[in-house]
Amino acid sequence: MTKGTLYLIPVPLAEGAEHVSYTPFQLELIDHIKEYIVENEKTARKFLKAAGLKTPQQELRIHDYGKHVRDKVNYQELLAGALRGEDIGLMSEAGCPGVADPGAEVVFEAHKRGIKVVPLIGPSSILLALMASGFSGQNFSFIGYLPIDKGARSKKIKDLEQESQREKRTQLFIETPFRNNQLLSELLKSCKPQTRLCIACNLTAPDEYIRTQTIEKWRSETVDLHKKPCIFLLYAG
Amino acid sequence: MTKGTLYLIPVPLAEGAEHVSYTPFQLELIDHIKEYIVENEKTARKFLKAAGLKTPQQELRIHDYGKHVRDKVNYQELLAGALRGEDIGLMSEAGCPGVADPGAEVVFEAHKRGIKVVPLIGPSSILLALMASGFSGQNFSFIGYLPIDKGARSKKIKDLEQESQREKRTQLFIETPFRNNQLLSELLKSCKPQTRLCIACNLTAPDEYIRTQTIEKWRSETVDLHKKPCIFLLYAG
Repeated sequence: MTKGTLYLIPVPLAEGAEHVSYTPFQLELIDHIKEYIVENEKTARKFLKAAGLKTPQQELRIHDYGKHVRDKVNYQELLAGALRGEDIGLMSEAGCPGVADPGAEVVFEAHKRGIKVVPLIGPSSILLALMASGFSGQNFSFIGYLPIDKGARSKKIKDLEQESQREKRTQLFIETPFRNNQLLSELLKSCKPQTRLCIACNLTAPDEYIRTQTIEKWRSETVDLHKKPCIFLLYAG
Repeated sequence: MTKGTLYLIPVPLAEGAEHVSYTPFQLELIDHIKEYIVENEKTARKFLKAAGLKTPQQELRIHDYGKHVRDKVNYQELLAGALRGEDIGLMSEAGCPGVADPGAEVVFEAHKRGIKVVPLIGPSSILLALMASGFSGQNFSFIGYLPIDKGARSKKIKDLEQESQREKRTQLFIETPFRNNQLLSELLKSCKPQTRLCIACNLTAPDEYIRTQTIEKWRSETVDLHKKPCIFLLYAG
């Protein structure tokens, strides 16, 4: 029996960003797929509705892959639909499933079972920030979160800066939005004046903010990043 | 005077992939923009035509940013349109400008001049491969090309494998398509049996091929990657 396909479906990063986020293929696909693996059922249903889903919501089979259940998931059951020959979709809360978001394990289990995996084109804050930074896209690392401990964090920032200089590598990292301002002041304290910093905030939203300049120039400015989803990019190459 | 915006415009990765690559916003935008900075004028015009451009081609102002001119570019002239208040577009040959493709320098010069930079959503083989690999998207590096020298290359592969294990990091790299098979046999020789390798080929094309399994399993298979655009992903975490 032919197996179904696991489609990896990106979700917009911001409210009202449907127009810049979806391809026609994605919109057709969500009317074809009846079974989804999602991070949060409520927001997944809201997203599908906003995207213009024509299937009645009660006809959808939605599997919860939220934080609270992830450790005890039975992947054989989760992927049963695809093993039976149906196409299924994987979505996270925002952006691309599996990239700075859960989902990689589901994809890996699909590969193990010979289920075809098809990634869809859509918004990724990491990729958009990298494009817009003006830094090297030939060599880059996404680090996720920096250490929480202040000493370890300052050391990590300096290590990233040195590695960037040595390898001509762009370093990308994130912070929980309510600690963005603290991270920024630590970057301004720990980095060399000529190192370049890009801050990308509220990507794809009407108030998207992307700015690249040297640490020296950032030091002379006041910018409030509190509670705004941001990505930070360092380049010292 | 208000400055124009520099839009970063992705280009499909494969022939006939328009439907999965473009957002409605991008299609509207290319009818609005009259001035482009491109890697190759001929393919840029072909791409705009395939995308359904309504503006007569002779009304477009296209700046060549190809390899042969990149070192002697006058960025002030290149960005003059945006400085005068017009929106301009930056495109590379395939995928996202600035990511494993030229363009980052143009973006950086735009930031220096206070020109707003807006990245558009579109295909990136790096991001699609990462999503579809089933490997960690919380921590990953794109390395570009590995060293050409055989000894240095084998050492680099082992270093990347060790770093992947230590940092739980996904390592992504590429090769010129006519040397893919050699790279694969070097990976199979240099890596540990339990390390996982994902090969992602012809992304977004009808014959897209994405497969993840252990080095041990790859060793027992024959796969021909000759002249196919591929991304390789290693994970030993």
